[in-house]
Amino acid sequence: MTKVKVYVTYKESILDPQGQAVTAAVHKMGYNSVEDIRIGKYFEITLTDSDASAEQTVAEIAEKLLANPNMESYRVEVVG
Amino acid sequence: MTKVKVYVTYKESILDPQGQAVTAAVHKMGYNSVEDIRIGKYFEITLTDSDASAEQTVAEIAEKLLANPNMESYRVEVVG
Repeated sequence: MTKVKVYVTYKESILDPQGQAVTAAVHKMGYNSVEDIRIGKYFEITLTDSDASAEQTVAEIAEKLLANPNMESYRVEVVG
Repeated sequence: MTKVKVYVTYKESILDPQGQAVTAAVHKMGYNSVEDIRIGKYFEITLTDSDASAEQTVAEIAEKLLANPNMESYRVEVVG
C-alpha cells in the first residue's frame, strides 16, 4: 500500500475570495498579525501500487480530475 | 514574515462521502489501484509574527475557526 498526498491551490494570480473572507474573520477575532490566508484542497490517496507508479498514477488523476488547470496548481507528495 | 500551513481532515471514524464520490469517479476512469481517497482543507497562512508565536496563533485560529472539533482534526506546520 502506498499513501500519496495531493495539494491543490489557486494559482498566485487568481483571487481567493474564500481566503479573504477567512482573513477578515480572523482579524475580527483580534489576530491582526495574520497578513494573508489562501485556501486549497488536500487529498490523501491510498493505492495498491508501488511508490514510483503510485506517483505517476496520482499525477495523472490530479491533472485530469482533482485540479482545474486554468485556475489551480497541484503538488504530489508520496508519503510511502 | 512567517508562513504556516494547516491541514484539516475528517477524523478516521467520520464517513467522507466526497472522498467516496471521487474514488468512484477515479475507478470509472480506469485507475483501479486506488483504494481510498480522503479529502480535506488546506490553508496557507502568512503572518508578521516570529515562528514560535506564529505557530501558537495559528493553532488557536485552527481550534476556533478552521476545524470543526466534533468531526475534524487539524495539523499545523510552520514552513518559515
